[in-house]
Amino acid sequence: MKNAIGIDVGGTNIRAARVNEKGTIELIQTCASTDQGPEKLVEILTEMIDTVKDGETIGIGLAMPGPVDETKGCITLSSNLKGCANYPFVDVLQYKTHLPVSLINDANAAALAEACVGAGNDCDIVYYMTLSTGIGGGLVINRKVYNGIHGYAGEVGNIVIDPAYPDAINNLAPGAMESHESGTALVRRAKECGLDVMHAGHVFELADHGNEKAKGMVVEFQHRLARLIATIIMITDPACIVLGGGMMQSSSYFLDEVRSYCDALIQPTLRPVDIRCAQCEQSGVIGAAMVYLGELV
Amino acid sequence: MKNAIGIDVGGTNIRAARVNEKGTIELIQTCASTDQGPEKLVEILTEMIDTVKDGETIGIGLAMPGPVDETKGCITLSSNLKGCANYPFVDVLQYKTHLPVSLINDANAAALAEACVGAGNDCDIVYYMTLSTGIGGGLVINRKVYNGIHGYAGEVGNIVIDPAYPDAINNLAPGAMESHESGTALVRRAKECGLDVMHAGHVFELADHGNEKAKGMVVEFQHRLARLIATIIMITDPACIVLGGGMMQSSSYFLDEVRSYCDALIQPTLRPVDIRCAQCEQSGVIGAAMVYLGELV
Repeated sequence: MKNAIGIDVGGTNIRAARVNEKGTIELIQTCASTDQGPEKLVEILTEMIDTVKDGETIGIGLAMPGPVDETKGCITLSSNLKGCANYPFVDVLQYKTHLPVSLINDANAAALAEACVGAGNDCDIVYYMTLSTGIGGGLVINRKVYNGIHGYAGEVGNIVIDPAYPDAINNLAPGAMESHESGTALVRRAKECGLDVMHAGHVFELADHGNEKAKGMVVEFQHRLARLIATIIMITDPACIVLGGGMMQSSSYFLDEVRSYCDALIQPTLRPVDIRCAQCEQSGVIGAAMVYLGELV
Repeated sequence: MKNAIGIDVGGTNIRAARVNEKGTIELIQTCASTDQGPEKLVEILTEMIDTVKDGETIGIGLAMPGPVDETKGCITLSSNLKGCANYPFVDVLQYKTHLPVSLINDANAAALAEACVGAGNDCDIVYYMTLSTGIGGGLVINRKVYNGIHGYAGEVGNIVIDPAYPDAINNLAPGAMESHESGTALVRRAKECGLDVMHAGHVFELADHGNEKAKGMVVEFQHRLARLIATIIMITDPACIVLGGGMMQSSSYFLDEVRSYCDALIQPTLRPVDIRCAQCEQSGVIGAAMVYLGELV
């Protein structure tokens, strides 16, 4: 059975896995990441690839944070990986491994994993959104990631969701979704209201226990997420929306409401909206491998 | 030289044209539309096709208003064409003409025309938006229209642009762009403010002459259009945005400001935003023909 190697490069860890045509991980290895620049990173990656590849390996998918330039085979911005912007990872790794190499944005890798072997695997068009410290998305059409011209398709965290809240945070647009409704943003705003919370899940729990400030925040979150999803539907009209990321651990506190508010914003013929919870564990490595296996699984 | 027939079916007129591989109209015919149902419409269309086709015709593209179900070859809603929803136009016309027939949404046809032979013909990914009595859009990827699963991709007029203005109009979402900023909506709102206007162009002219109410409306229009375009960019990351429709006759009153406001909402690496004015006359018939010729021109 053919396989591909999927690699997920994060700021903390690097995971490399051999994934087979069925989407099953046959072998996975985890190493600490590096802040010593791209040459050191390539050294680590080459060793990991040697460990997990075998004679049936047809390609290597490399998932990295940041916008991907597919033509040049590099990421064009790197906030978590020092010095890695514009480094020609694809060319260098192809030269060293003698295998085809593709670069994919990490949110897009998760999207591809869900579309190929996860919650959206029965759908031709899947929109995946991650709700986590940040908010990002990815459109998968017939098991291929839609990247856009500059690799910025899926930057949905930067969509202005409410112009009445114009604070610009982290170089995002004033009023951007991520600035107000990401996990990090919910915690920040809860603390500004005097709430004692450690993570976004606490905000949902406090609301559930009747805290009025938290309840207000949760209702606002539900409406804004519904609005963002409805917006995505009006532009991409997918068969389903898949939601992943850490905030989905609290989905029982918001998902039914989001579905209901979203239905009120889309055309009657599109109701009920099909919003699903992500299913893949290790979606980064599986999605990266699916660049080569997506049409086979 | 190969050619295709492009037909644009509107509520008032029907145009049928023979379009060649260069995107040039060789012959065009215009008839009055009908409200006597789909069989009568098919009768008219068959006659028009007989007039304009020749021995080099490879297919017939039929542009109609409403969401298109590509699998069934029908439109699923028809507000302007009585009784035409769910009628199998593709099957019936293929049977009568012995030529391949495709159905395309009329806004998508205009998008395809601009992407193939108009303002975006040097770009692999084009997002077209029409600003007219309504507001609609179309994404063209490598000279093919992206239709979505249910034919609703491009329904950008239904995107909520400002939740603080929650009036629901025409079955659109409360606060939808089309309800507030289409040509029709601008005229309605101007009249509500006591302004004496006949069409949207008057609102822009009044603002230019210093009318404070009109100036407020125009600034709001500029900001909201910029926000909608930035939203589309964060989801589809096209090479360019092409704007068409009747309101573009007033583009000198808003386009520079829209570009500037949009730049403030997108990532620095994407600036300056590439917003272009539509170029195609007869974009409906040309775009419908491009379903068959798009990869040849």
